[in-house]
Amino acid sequence: MSKRFEAPKGLEGVVVAKTSISKIDGQRGKLLYRGYDVSELASKLSFEGTIFLLWNARLAEELELREFSQKLIPNMSLNSDTIDFIEKVPKTSEPLALLRTVTSLLGMLHGNDQEPRRAASSLLAKFPAILSVFHRFRNNQEEISPLSNLSFAENYLYMLHGSVPPKEHSAALNSYLILLADHGLNASTFSALVTISTLTDYYSAVTSAIGTLKGPLHGGAPSQVWEMLTRIGDANNAKTWLEKRIESGQRIMGFGHRIYRTEDPRSKALKIIAKRIAKPEVFELAENVEETARALLREKHPERTLETNVEFYSSVVLNAIGIPIDMFTSTFACSRLVGWSAHIFEQLSDNRLFRPESEYIGPQDLALP
Amino acid sequence: MSKRFEAPKGLEGVVVAKTSISKIDGQRGKLLYRGYDVSELASKLSFEGTIFLLWNARLAEELELREFSQKLIPNMSLNSDTIDFIEKVPKTSEPLALLRTVTSLLGMLHGNDQEPRRAASSLLAKFPAILSVFHRFRNNQEEISPLSNLSFAENYLYMLHGSVPPKEHSAALNSYLILLADHGLNASTFSALVTISTLTDYYSAVTSAIGTLKGPLHGGAPSQVWEMLTRIGDANNAKTWLEKRIESGQRIMGFGHRIYRTEDPRSKALKIIAKRIAKPEVFELAENVEETARALLREKHPERTLETNVEFYSSVVLNAIGIPIDMFTSTFACSRLVGWSAHIFEQLSDNRLFRPESEYIGPQDLALP
Repeated sequence: MSKRFEAPKGLEGVVVAKTSISKIDGQRGKLLYRGYDVSELASKLSFEGTIFLLWNARLAEELELREFSQKLIPNMSLNSDTIDFIEKVPKTSEPLALLRTVTSLLGMLHGNDQEPRRAASSLLAKFPAILSVFHRFRNNQEEISPLSNLSFAENYLYMLHGSVPPKEHSAALNSYLILLADHGLNASTFSALVTISTLTDYYSAVTSAIGTLKGPLHGGAPSQVWEMLTRIGDANNAKTWLEKRIESGQRIMGFGHRIYRTEDPRSKALKIIAKRIAKPEVFELAENVEETARALLREKHPERTLETNVEFYSSVVLNAIGIPIDMFTSTFACSRLVGWSAHIFEQLSDNRLFRPESEYIGPQDLALP
Repeated sequence: MSKRFEAPKGLEGVVVAKTSISKIDGQRGKLLYRGYDVSELASKLSFEGTIFLLWNARLAEELELREFSQKLIPNMSLNSDTIDFIEKVPKTSEPLALLRTVTSLLGMLHGNDQEPRRAASSLLAKFPAILSVFHRFRNNQEEISPLSNLSFAENYLYMLHGSVPPKEHSAALNSYLILLADHGLNASTFSALVTISTLTDYYSAVTSAIGTLKGPLHGGAPSQVWEMLTRIGDANNAKTWLEKRIESGQRIMGFGHRIYRTEDPRSKALKIIAKRIAKPEVFELAENVEETARALLREKHPERTLETNVEFYSSVVLNAIGIPIDMFTSTFACSRLVGWSAHIFEQLSDNRLFRPESEYIGPQDLALP
């Protein structure tokens, strides 16, 4: 009560936690998970191996990883009650709102008797199942059970599309899931920490994070990048379209990040993947829009760093592997759930209730008539 | 990025927002809503009038208030899909987890096309309906529709118990709902702010707040106070029971608050109500436990202020009007939803994304084998 500190709005620049999960080095354009460079992880590790690393602070040994992965797959099925619930929601429902609701529902059923790490393994496996059951239901298709010989990324695409995906697609999704798995104390991760700090259950904290991710200032942009690319349509239209947009003072989606002062390492990695798997004309369009927008923005704002952010090439990669546009952000959630969970475990290991203060600026000592 | 400030754990003493909603004056033991003393509001205003005050920063005129109240009651019904959903959940479900799930479900159905103030009016009216439908369902009773000539507090008890409540019960609930409606940036309110700061929908922010309230460090204590009183059972046992408990280093539920350095004004008001409506032997037990525990705690910790907090007499009041023990915290949520909503509106009126920082303390520059 005695010493009060007035924080900048949005807690900008305020260190609210110590963490050994991820380090964002904005100056060097590097992102580390538990000390390892994320670009290296994305090209050499499985998503399962990255989950193990983020949750256990060390690389898994071969047998451990096999056991961990094998336990994950059977959890990728939903019980019939959950499927019934999903198959009753309006087909126009927003996938992320569905994910938030089913997470809360599963929490109601299991939240008080599952230890957080067990809950996290179970829920992480269920996210792809929830999304694929819903997607197939809205297309009048039967749900598909996971295959025990496929990886997490392979099963996600298999359960969504009904056929075992080409290797390059599952490899692309695998890298995407690794690259997006954690990124410091963004708003969704922070909301999970505030929630878990009352020692509520794991599912409550994840429910908070999903609802927070849903906002356009956070997770809502990758689909908007794709809509922009679709609207531009052809590389030849890019300059005129972007000039008009910049002149009218509107934002160009997929550019700029509060933290990186150089290229976002995830964006760099995703661009290489996009080049490999997107149709050549789509990649050409995206690259042309990137270069044109960067040049135009530099001219207009020479003082800012305006590189593409993680959302720009994410949209190209997710589209190339057949993820529906309205499931870009919920696919992001499948990845980020790993980071949310790691931060929840870390908070629980040394918890303190979040209870900041506000400064009252309203009237005082009014009397009722 | 340039200036970094390391905040105390849990953001203690850190002012993260300016507000004109409520002022907690811990030194004087006062709580103001929009400038008015909460004790005065609780004895003179209706809950509806307090909602209007908190949401509009002024007292309602008579006709305005009538219109506001009349609009609220029809919203106290659930549609048949929502009732069907509630009547399928396990009867052992935790009411607060159900409230969180139905809020998320309603958000999935309406979240993207309802303006926050409209959403708040609608959801606030639905909270008592969700709880009473569930409570009657688990007791194998049909749900009851609200009556248009009853107030919010009257309808809550009517829909829960199936009969129009005695005036003193609805008056007690009315005061309780006013007294608990807001209290600065507690963890649940703060989680609602972090969530809404991404410009997600209103329901997402409330879903976060409910999950946060669910934790034992925040909203979970009133039922524990009641369990303690039940276990002590008789005023004559209080001293022995409490001494044993204090000697073994365990916490006495319902005592102490981080902010008030004198008596909590809400506790004072609730004690007067409890005396009026609780059975004499129950009130006597509670008062005896209060006095004995205070004396014992003072002896042990002369440096601390250890008065009863809001939870202590809340439990006596809620029990006296027939609220089931496992619905104490969800009844609290019916009240606090008013404050959560007011803070959500305030945040939206001058928003900035919450995006604090963390300090990385893990290993660096590790190489994969």
